Amino acid sequence: MILIGERINAGFKDIAAAIRGKDPTAVEKWARLQAEQGADYLDVNIGAASRDPADMAWLVKTTAAVVPTKISVDSTKIEAVQAGLEALDGRGCLINSTTADPEKLEKLVPLAVKHDASLLGLAMDERGSPQNVERRVENAAMVFMAAIEGGLPPERLFIDPILMPIKFMQDQAPHVLEAIEQITHLSDPSPHISVGLSNIASKVTERGQIVRTFLIMAMGRGLDAAICNVMDDELITAIATAELMLNQEIYSDSYERAFRARRGL
Amino acid sequence: MILIGERINAGFKDIAAAIRGKDPTAVEKWARLQAEQGADYLDVNIGAASRDPADMAWLVKTTAAVVPTKISVDSTKIEAVQAGLEALDGRGCLINSTTADPEKLEKLVPLAVKHDASLLGLAMDERGSPQNVERRVENAAMVFMAAIEGGLPPERLFIDPILMPIKFMQDQAPHVLEAIEQITHLSDPSPHISVGLSNIASKVTERGQIVRTFLIMAMGRGLDAAICNVMDDELITAIATAELMLNQEIYSDSYERAFRARRGL
Repeated sequence: MILIGERINAGFKDIAAAIRGKDPTAVEKWARLQAEQGADYLDVNIGAASRDPADMAWLVKTTAAVVPTKISVDSTKIEAVQAGLEALDGRGCLINSTTADPEKLEKLVPLAVKHDASLLGLAMDERGSPQNVERRVENAAMVFMAAIEGGLPPERLFIDPILMPIKFMQDQAPHVLEAIEQITHLSDPSPHISVGLSNIASKVTERGQIVRTFLIMAMGRGLDAAICNVMDDELITAIATAELMLNQEIYSDSYERAFRARRGL
Repeated sequence: MILIGERINAGFKDIAAAIRGKDPTAVEKWARLQAEQGADYLDVNIGAASRDPADMAWLVKTTAAVVPTKISVDSTKIEAVQAGLEALDGRGCLINSTTADPEKLEKLVPLAVKHDASLLGLAMDERGSPQNVERRVENAAMVFMAAIEGGLPPERLFIDPILMPIKFMQDQAPHVLEAIEQITHLSDPSPHISVGLSNIASKVTERGQIVRTFLIMAMGRGLDAAICNVMDDELITAIATAELMLNQEIYSDSYERAFRARRGL
């Protein structure tokens, strides 16, 4: 599994305050903590806290200064993505995100190619969030085709089938699971498939249980990446065990420790 | 999920002693405890403790006397199965098990039809345990065809794709997951698909974690029954949450309590 740490996001109060006051303390703390937990990428998102691309540049630079981890530059605004990419030092990065909207693909695919970046494409378009399997897979195929035609190979493409809150849109969960499996058939090798895991647990009481259960089930259908709370030790244990079941992680009596050690936890 | 309680099995010392001494105490205790935990069936198995069909009759009668739960008559010996079925009082029961061996199918399918019983077929034949997806699905199809031809509808058929210990045969776990999905395509409605869940955790240290993770993943591929330790509360919670993800259990903030209440826990 490719783990993308979700914590450096202005949706969290300490990060919003850090951006406003240009105080690196909280950003550095979460960069180090998530890297120690074995995050493959650190997602960096200025959210609603700012509309200024320079703030994305600052947040990316501040994060990248303390750990060597790859960065996921997370914004719906192309100017902010661009500023984030330009603030980087040549390390691997992920553009998060495009949609299947042709206008966005036309700009973001070349940007990913130019910066040697990976690209995450949401399986939604200008009509909004998909409500069934077919729309998810159609949108995924749109993103996939645009990426291939633009020179971005499947191993640098991440598709997000759009996970929704189980509390409010429960019927969407099995659609997402089915879409994941169908997206794995788009090519061989398949593009990576990633979800924003915390979305499913919006406003629920049994948060940990729900994110773990969905993630295990989705891994069984082909999910290989997630933007998630990497600080959740039970989630990390569930992922290690799920990799065991898929024969991706070798069994030993201490497989959990081995999994963590390999990720530098 | 159809839960089949595994505990009334002479592989456990207290049950072996109960059979030898014809002392109902331990049998009655586990019958009540598993029924209270919401077991749909109680598996009854005299194992290596006895070769006498009369012992199966005694164990079935003793179990059935204290709870109204359906019984899974578990033996590889047809005489023991027959004795178990004849000891029953007309309540629903499951014959556990046949294999894909034609000689066994010729006897056990008519026996299930005659007794209005369901039948569990192991996806193995006289050549032994399957080592890949194809052999599992071939054997499942053999059992399925024999059942249909013999007048047993898919809803009274359970197929077991043969789960193996993750510690010793790790490569078999993804084969079982893939076989489960392929078996769901045999018919519509599909036969039930069941595993002997504890098999996967033979000799492992992280037993609970491993059985939960496999079960969630397998439910995501179409598993709808398991012979398992229904006394494992964390397993029951995982099953309730997995049903939520599949939109089989309606979300409420107290979905775990609702799941248990409906099963009489």
